[in-house]
Amino acid sequence: MAKEPKTLDDLFHDTLKDIYFAEKKILSTLPKMMKAAQSEDLKAAFEKHHGETTAQIERLEQVFAIIDKKPVGKTCAAIVGITEEGAEIMSEYKGSPALDAGLLAAAQAVEHYEISRYGTLRTWAEELGLEEAVSLLQATLDEEEATDLALSELAKSAINQQAEAA
Amino acid sequence: MAKEPKTLDDLFHDTLKDIYFAEKKILSTLPKMMKAAQSEDLKAAFEKHHGETTAQIERLEQVFAIIDKKPVGKTCAAIVGITEEGAEIMSEYKGSPALDAGLLAAAQAVEHYEISRYGTLRTWAEELGLEEAVSLLQATLDEEEATDLALSELAKSAINQQAEAA
Repeated sequence: MAKEPKTLDDLFHDTLKDIYFAEKKILSTLPKMMKAAQSEDLKAAFEKHHGETTAQIERLEQVFAIIDKKPVGKTCAAIVGITEEGAEIMSEYKGSPALDAGLLAAAQAVEHYEISRYGTLRTWAEELGLEEAVSLLQATLDEEEATDLALSELAKSAINQQAEAA
Repeated sequence: MAKEPKTLDDLFHDTLKDIYFAEKKILSTLPKMMKAAQSEDLKAAFEKHHGETTAQIERLEQVFAIIDKKPVGKTCAAIVGITEEGAEIMSEYKGSPALDAGLLAAAQAVEHYEISRYGTLRTWAEELGLEEAVSLLQATLDEEEATDLALSELAKSAINQQAEAA
Protein backbone atom coordinates (compact mmCIF):
# COMPACT_ATOMS: atom_id res chain seq x y z
CA MET A 1 0.00 0.00 0.00
CA ALA A 2 1.42 3.37 -1.05
CA LYS A 3 1.84 5.93 1.73
CA GLU A 4 -0.35 9.02 1.56
CA PRO A 5 1.80 12.09 0.94
CA LYS A 6 2.31 14.06 4.13
CA THR A 7 0.51 17.40 4.37
CA LEU A 8 0.72 20.57 6.41
CA ASP A 9 -1.73 18.95 8.88
CA ASP A 10 0.83 16.19 9.47
CA LEU A 11 3.64 18.71 9.85
CA PHE A 12 1.59 20.69 12.37
CA HIS A 13 0.85 17.53 14.36
CA ASP A 14 4.49 16.31 14.23
CA THR A 15 5.80 19.69 15.38
CA LEU A 16 3.20 19.85 18.16
CA LYS A 17 4.50 16.50 19.46
CA ASP A 18 8.05 17.85 19.25
CA ILE A 19 7.35 20.97 21.34
CA TYR A 20 5.19 18.96 23.78
CA PHE A 21 8.19 16.72 24.48
CA ALA A 22 10.42 19.83 24.69
CA GLU A 23 8.16 21.60 27.23
CA LYS A 24 8.09 18.52 29.47
CA LYS A 25 11.88 18.30 29.28
CA ILE A 26 12.12 21.99 30.19
CA LEU A 27 9.71 21.48 33.10
CA SER A 28 12.01 18.81 34.56
CA THR A 29 15.19 20.82 33.88
CA LEU A 30 14.13 24.15 35.42
CA PRO A 31 14.24 22.99 39.07
CA LYS A 32 17.88 21.92 38.55
CA MET A 33 18.74 25.31 37.09
CA MET A 34 16.89 27.05 39.91
CA LYS A 35 18.91 25.06 42.45
CA ALA A 36 22.20 25.79 40.66
CA ALA A 37 21.65 29.54 40.22
CA GLN A 38 23.62 31.75 42.58
CA SER A 39 21.63 34.99 42.43
CA GLU A 40 18.19 35.26 43.97
CA ASP A 41 16.95 37.18 40.90
CA LEU A 42 17.90 34.32 38.61
CA LYS A 43 16.38 31.71 40.93
CA ALA A 44 13.16 33.75 40.92
CA ALA A 45 13.19 34.05 37.11
CA PHE A 46 13.52 30.26 36.75
CA GLU A 47 10.78 29.67 39.31
CA LYS A 48 8.42 32.04 37.47
CA HIS A 49 9.16 30.31 34.17
CA HIS A 50 8.49 26.93 35.76
CA GLY A 51 4.93 28.05 36.53
CA GLU A 52 4.51 29.44 33.01
CA THR A 53 5.75 26.17 31.51
CA THR A 54 3.05 24.23 33.34
CA ALA A 55 0.41 26.52 31.82
CA GLN A 56 2.07 26.24 28.37
CA ILE A 57 1.84 22.44 28.52
CA GLU A 58 -1.88 22.75 29.28
CA ARG A 59 -2.31 25.06 26.27
CA LEU A 60 -0.57 22.49 24.06
CA GLU A 61 -2.99 19.84 25.36
CA GLN A 62 -5.86 22.12 24.30
CA VAL A 63 -4.30 22.40 20.81
CA PHE A 64 -4.06 18.58 20.59
CA ALA A 65 -7.77 18.45 21.47
CA ILE A 66 -8.59 21.01 18.76
CA ILE A 67 -7.03 18.77 16.08
CA ASP A 68 -8.62 15.73 17.70
CA LYS A 69 -5.36 14.03 18.68
CA LYS A 70 -4.05 12.62 21.93
CA PRO A 71 -1.36 14.72 23.66
CA VAL A 72 1.71 12.58 23.00
CA GLY A 73 5.32 13.78 22.79
CA LYS A 74 7.98 12.72 20.31
CA THR A 75 11.68 12.87 21.21
CA CYS A 76 12.96 16.29 20.19
CA ALA A 77 16.69 15.99 19.42
CA ALA A 78 17.06 19.77 19.49
CA ILE A 79 15.92 20.27 23.08
CA VAL A 80 17.91 17.21 24.18
CA GLY A 81 21.05 18.86 22.73
CA ILE A 82 20.25 22.32 24.10
CA THR A 83 19.61 21.06 27.64
CA GLU A 84 22.74 18.87 27.44
CA GLU A 85 24.74 22.06 26.92
CA GLY A 86 23.04 23.58 29.96
CA ALA A 87 23.97 20.53 32.04
CA GLU A 88 27.60 20.88 30.89
CA ILE A 89 27.62 24.51 32.09
CA MET A 90 26.21 23.48 35.48
CA SER A 91 28.96 20.91 35.89
CA GLU A 92 31.93 22.80 34.39
CA TYR A 93 31.14 26.16 36.00
CA LYS A 94 30.05 24.85 39.42
CA GLY A 95 31.46 27.19 42.05
CA SER A 96 32.55 29.70 39.42
CA PRO A 97 31.43 33.33 39.55
CA ALA A 98 30.56 32.95 35.85
CA LEU A 99 28.03 30.18 36.56
CA ASP A 100 24.96 32.44 36.50
CA ALA A 101 26.04 34.06 33.21
CA GLY A 102 26.34 30.56 31.73
CA LEU A 103 22.95 29.48 33.10
CA LEU A 104 21.36 32.60 31.64
CA ALA A 105 22.86 31.85 28.24
CA ALA A 106 21.61 28.25 28.41
CA ALA A 107 18.12 29.43 29.34
CA GLN A 108 18.09 31.92 26.48
CA ALA A 109 19.03 29.18 24.00
CA VAL A 110 16.00 27.23 25.27
CA GLU A 111 13.75 30.30 24.96
CA HIS A 112 14.86 30.92 21.38
CA TYR A 113 14.14 27.34 20.41
CA GLU A 114 10.64 27.73 21.82
CA ILE A 115 10.14 31.11 20.12
CA SER A 116 11.01 29.57 16.77
CA ARG A 117 8.69 26.58 17.30
CA TYR A 118 5.70 28.57 18.56
CA GLY A 119 6.13 31.16 15.77
CA THR A 120 6.10 28.35 13.20
CA LEU A 121 3.10 26.57 14.77
CA ARG A 122 1.16 29.83 15.06
CA THR A 123 1.75 30.59 11.34
CA TRP A 124 0.69 27.07 10.33
CA ALA A 125 -2.41 27.23 12.56
CA GLU A 126 -3.37 30.42 10.69
CA GLU A 127 -2.89 28.69 7.33
CA LEU A 128 -4.96 25.74 8.52
CA GLY A 129 -7.75 28.01 9.77
CA LEU A 130 -7.41 26.82 13.39
CA GLU A 131 -8.41 30.12 14.98
CA GLU A 132 -8.56 28.91 18.57
CA ALA A 133 -5.15 27.25 18.26
CA VAL A 134 -3.72 30.51 16.89
CA SER A 135 -4.78 32.32 20.10
CA LEU A 136 -3.35 29.64 22.37
CA LEU A 137 -0.02 29.48 20.50
CA GLN A 138 0.22 33.27 20.34
CA ALA A 139 -0.34 33.53 24.11
CA THR A 140 2.60 31.20 24.74
CA LEU A 141 4.76 32.92 22.11
CA ASP A 142 4.17 36.25 23.88
CA GLU A 143 5.21 34.71 27.21
CA GLU A 144 8.37 33.18 25.74
CA GLU A 145 9.39 36.50 24.19
CA ALA A 146 8.78 38.29 27.50
CA THR A 147 10.87 35.66 29.32
CA ASP A 148 13.73 36.04 26.83
CA LEU A 149 13.65 39.82 27.29
CA ALA A 150 13.66 39.48 31.09
CA LEU A 151 16.66 37.11 30.89
CA SER A 152 18.47 39.57 28.61
CA GLU A 153 17.94 42.31 31.18
CA LEU A 154 19.27 40.06 33.95
CA ALA A 155 22.28 39.16 31.77
CA LYS A 156 23.13 42.81 31.20
CA SER A 157 22.87 43.69 34.89
CA ALA A 158 24.62 42.46 37.99
CA ILE A 159 25.28 38.88 36.96
CA ASN A 160 27.81 39.53 34.23
CA GLN A 161 29.53 42.17 36.29
CA GLN A 162 29.84 39.64 39.07
CA ALA A 163 31.46 37.16 36.70
CA GLU A 164 33.85 39.76 35.41
CA ALA A 165 34.87 40.90 38.89
CA ALA A 166 36.09 37.41 39.71
CA MET B 1 47.03 21.40 42.02
CA ALA B 2 43.68 23.11 42.50
CA LYS B 3 41.92 24.27 39.35
CA GLU B 4 41.59 28.01 38.83
CA PRO B 5 37.92 29.00 39.05
CA LYS B 6 36.48 29.63 35.61
CA THR B 7 35.72 33.22 34.72
CA LEU B 8 33.63 35.13 32.19
CA ASP B 9 36.68 35.08 29.87
CA ASP B 10 36.56 31.28 29.91
CA LEU B 11 32.81 31.28 29.31
CA PHE B 12 33.25 33.68 26.36
CA HIS B 13 35.97 31.46 24.89
CA ASP B 14 33.97 28.22 25.43
CA THR B 15 30.87 29.71 23.82
CA LEU B 16 32.90 31.04 20.91
CA LYS B 17 34.16 27.49 20.27
CA ASP B 18 30.56 26.25 20.45
CA ILE B 19 29.22 28.69 17.84
CA TYR B 20 32.31 28.18 15.64
CA PHE B 21 31.50 24.45 15.51
CA ALA B 22 27.82 25.31 14.92
CA GLU B 23 28.55 27.66 11.99
CA LYS B 24 30.72 25.04 10.29
CA LYS B 25 27.97 22.46 10.75
CA ILE B 26 25.46 24.91 9.26
CA LEU B 27 27.79 25.60 6.32
CA SER B 28 27.86 21.88 5.47
CA THR B 29 24.09 21.45 6.00
CA LEU B 30 22.85 24.37 3.87
CA PRO B 31 23.73 22.82 0.47
CA LYS B 32 21.62 19.76 1.39
CA MET B 33 18.68 21.99 2.32
CA MET B 34 19.15 24.02 -0.87
CA LYS B 35 19.03 20.81 -2.91
CA ALA B 36 15.95 19.52 -1.08
CA ALA B 37 13.94 22.77 -1.28
CA GLN B 38 11.16 22.77 -3.86
CA SER B 39 10.57 26.49 -4.36
CA GLU B 40 13.11 28.65 -6.15
CA ASP B 41 12.64 31.39 -3.51
CA LEU B 42 13.61 29.02 -0.72
CA LYS B 43 16.60 27.66 -2.67
CA ALA B 44 17.73 31.27 -3.19
CA ALA B 45 17.29 32.09 0.52
CA PHE B 46 19.46 29.11 1.52
CA GLU B 47 22.08 30.02 -1.07
CA LYS B 48 22.25 33.60 0.21
CA HIS B 49 22.60 32.38 3.78
CA HIS B 50 25.39 30.02 2.72
CA GLY B 51 27.42 33.02 1.57
CA GLU B 52 26.63 34.92 4.77
CA THR B 53 27.69 31.91 6.87
CA THR B 54 31.13 31.91 5.23
CA ALA B 55 31.56 35.56 6.20
CA GLN B 56 30.28 34.87 9.72
CA ILE B 57 32.90 32.15 10.19
CA GLU B 58 35.58 34.65 9.18
CA ARG B 59 34.25 37.14 11.73
CA LEU B 60 34.44 34.47 14.43
CA GLU B 61 38.07 33.84 13.45
CA GLN B 62 38.72 37.55 13.94
CA VAL B 63 37.15 37.34 17.41
CA PHE B 64 39.40 34.37 18.28
CA ALA B 65 42.38 36.51 17.20
CA ILE B 66 41.19 39.41 19.40
CA ILE B 67 41.28 37.18 22.50
CA ASP B 68 44.54 35.64 21.32
CA LYS B 69 43.21 32.13 20.82
CA LYS B 70 43.32 29.68 17.94
CA PRO B 71 40.03 29.22 16.06
CA VAL B 72 39.00 25.77 17.25
CA GLY B 73 35.47 24.39 17.48
CA LYS B 74 33.97 22.29 20.25
CA THR B 75 31.11 19.88 19.58
CA CYS B 76 27.87 21.76 20.09
CA ALA B 77 25.18 19.27 21.12
CA ALA B 78 22.46 21.84 20.46
CA ILE B 79 23.23 22.36 16.76
CA VAL B 80 23.74 18.61 16.31
CA GLY B 81 20.21 18.05 17.65
CA ILE B 82 18.67 20.93 15.69
CA THR B 83 20.19 19.83 12.37
CA GLU B 84 19.19 16.21 13.12
CA GLU B 85 15.58 17.38 13.23
CA GLY B 86 16.09 19.11 9.87
CA ALA B 87 17.46 15.89 8.38
CA GLU B 88 14.39 14.01 9.68
CA ILE B 89 12.12 16.52 7.92
CA MET B 90 14.07 16.08 4.65
CA SER B 91 13.64 12.33 4.84
CA GLU B 92 10.08 12.08 6.19
CA TYR B 93 8.62 14.84 3.99
CA LYS B 94 10.50 14.01 0.80
CA GLY B 95 8.08 14.40 -2.12
CA SER B 96 5.45 16.00 0.13
CA PRO B 97 3.99 19.43 -0.66
CA ALA B 98 4.68 20.30 3.00
CA LEU B 99 8.43 19.76 2.61
CA ASP B 100 9.31 23.43 2.10
CA ALA B 101 7.26 24.48 5.13
CA GLY B 102 9.19 21.93 7.18
CA LEU B 103 12.55 23.08 5.81
CA LEU B 104 11.67 26.67 6.63
CA ALA B 105 10.80 25.70 10.20
CA ALA B 106 14.08 23.79 10.55
CA ALA B 107 16.04 26.77 9.22
CA GLN B 108 14.28 29.12 11.63
CA ALA B 109 15.18 26.88 14.56
CA VAL B 110 18.82 27.16 13.46
CA GLU B 111 18.55 30.96 13.13
CA HIS B 112 17.09 31.29 16.60
CA TYR B 113 19.88 29.24 18.12
CA GLU B 114 22.39 31.54 16.46
CA ILE B 115 20.50 34.67 17.53
CA SER B 116 20.61 33.51 21.14
CA ARG B 117 24.35 32.69 20.98
CA TYR B 118 25.40 35.90 19.23
CA GLY B 119 23.24 38.00 21.57
CA THR B 120 24.93 36.36 24.55
CA LEU B 121 28.45 36.71 23.12
CA ARG B 122 27.85 40.35 22.19
CA THR B 123 26.68 41.13 25.75
CA TRP B 124 29.71 39.36 27.27
CA ALA B 125 32.10 41.10 24.86
CA GLU B 126 30.67 44.42 26.11
CA GLU B 127 31.22 43.37 29.72
CA LEU B 128 34.77 42.30 28.92
CA GLY B 129 35.50 45.58 27.14
CA LEU B 130 36.23 43.87 23.80
CA GLU B 131 34.95 46.72 21.63
CA GLU B 132 36.07 45.32 18.29
CA ALA B 133 34.53 41.94 19.08
CA VAL B 134 31.25 43.69 19.98
CA SER B 135 31.08 45.19 16.45
CA LEU B 136 31.86 41.88 14.74
CA LEU B 137 29.32 39.94 16.81
CA GLN B 138 26.67 42.64 16.36
CA ALA B 139 27.16 42.56 12.57
CA THR B 140 26.46 38.83 12.52
CA LEU B 141 23.54 39.16 14.95
CA ASP B 142 21.94 41.75 12.63
CA GLU B 143 22.36 39.37 9.66
CA GLU B 144 20.84 36.43 11.54
CA GLU B 145 17.85 38.51 12.59
CA ALA B 146 17.34 39.70 9.00
CA THR B 147 17.55 36.08 7.77
CA ASP B 148 14.98 34.95 10.34
CA LEU B 149 12.63 37.75 9.25
CA ALA B 150 13.07 36.85 5.56
CA LEU B 151 12.31 33.18 6.34
CA SER B 152 9.19 34.23 8.30
CA GLU B 153 8.00 36.20 5.27
CA LEU B 154 8.61 33.20 3.00
CA ALA B 155 6.76 30.96 5.47
CA LYS B 156 3.73 33.21 5.49
CA SER B 157 3.57 33.44 1.71
CA ALA B 158 3.19 30.88 -1.05
CA ILE B 159 4.95 27.97 0.59
CA ASN B 160 2.45 27.23 3.31
CA GLN B 161 -0.44 27.79 0.95
CA GLN B 162 1.12 25.23 -1.34
CA ALA B 163 1.36 22.73 1.47
CA GLU B 164 -2.21 23.34 2.51
CA ALA B 165 -3.54 22.97 -1.05
CA ALA B 166 -2.15 19.43 -1.24
